[in-house]
Amino acid sequence: MKSLTEHLWIEVPNRRGFANITDQVDDLVKKSEVQDGLCLVNAMHITASVFINDAEEGLLNDYEVWLEKLAPHAPTTQYQHNRTGEDNADAHLKRQVMGRDVVVAITNGKLDFGPWEQIFYGEFDGRRRKRVLVKIIGE
Amino acid sequence: MKSLTEHLWIEVPNRRGFANITDQVDDLVKKSEVQDGLCLVNAMHITASVFINDAEEGLLNDYEVWLEKLAPHAPTTQYQHNRTGEDNADAHLKRQVMGRDVVVAITNGKLDFGPWEQIFYGEFDGRRRKRVLVKIIGE
Amino acid sequence: MKSLTEHLWIEVPNRRGFANITDQVDDLVKKSEVQDGLCLVNAMHITASVFINDAEEGLLNDYEVWLEKLAPHAPTTQYQHNRTGEDNADAHLKRQVMGRDVVVAITNGKLDFGPWEQIFYGEFDGRRRKRVLVKIIGE
Repeated sequence: MKSLTEHLWIEVPNRRGFANITDQVDDLVKKSEVQDGLCLVNAMHITASVFINDAEEGLLNDYEVWLEKLAPHAPTTQYQHNRTGEDNADAHLKRQVMGRDVVVAITNGKLDFGPWEQIFYGEFDGRRRKRVLVKIIGE
Repeated sequence: MKSLTEHLWIEVPNRRGFANITDQVDDLVKKSEVQDGLCLVNAMHITASVFINDAEEGLLNDYEVWLEKLAPHAPTTQYQHNRTGEDNADAHLKRQVMGRDVVVAITNGKLDFGPWEQIFYGEFDGRRRKRVLVKIIGE
Repeated sequence: MKSLTEHLWIEVPNRRGFANITDQVDDLVKKSEVQDGLCLVNAMHITASVFINDAEEGLLNDYEVWLEKLAPHAPTTQYQHNRTGEDNADAHLKRQVMGRDVVVAITNGKLDFGPWEQIFYGEFDGRRRKRVLVKIIGE
């Protein structure tokens, strides 16, 4: 069994935003030399997501608007978590809708993707450096 | 390490619908001859889901009604994504609620399931053939 | 390849509640003697979740309030599933928001976690014993 473990560092300049990390994960798959296996990609922070969807700016904006409707940031006093001095309770909720991790098959040394699948980091409490874990196992 | 990679083709005749794919995944687990390992099942399209829940018609109808409430299809002009000429922005949102992939343990050559776990394909922008990836690794 | 398969039994005394199972999963990782691999943790019941977030009581309360808003328990007659004699349709919906499974990397014999990641069992139809599956593969 071969394996590779790497962290990606990501800093989103605003409270919320999305970053396409597909190319970085692709590079790590090549580096791993795994031909056949699984690639786990997960946020290491609990106010961020890793998910797979379309690299289309309008859609990313739709996610932003929709998540803010499902789990509004303000008023921050509506959440018990914010009594700890945080103002990011909504970020913990949004992250559950979008998910923590994706598992992607590796076949013939490549991410085994459908035509439009792209890996995104979703940030819901940004303005600081955070990590994404990439773990690859296989042969 | 043994591995198996297969695609299932699914065509849902309406815009939205659910298909139980448990038997097809079961057959692939047998074919793989893996006794102990992991089975990844994921939608390869970004307007569809793979999820595990109950094979009960009433519940599937409840999911349909609920998802349409959380992320309504109409008016299609409410979504920026639809300015690209698409009308399926809601499908990209619904798919995030239901999830892209499931990972199931394989033990003693079988899907290691609780009593009611069934694997479903959830289609939110159908009327065309789409693919599900099944990737099995183990020994 | 090494592997380990274990079930955790959990009984939440109320209809809904959360249980931190991180220590139990940690112990199983040690027991497995896997240094490098993947750890799947999933609910085996379809009205429960396994998810990763913060061990903070206020936040868990926020999840409870939020999920009840997204998928209310009452009136139970609003769900077709409940015509089968069940009253737990909302639990099947809530579980989809929070997720069925998490996959965690194992590195140097430990769960490869960010600073605040904790594994939770989320129960949405409790008052009976249920199982969580832990499957570890690697070397």
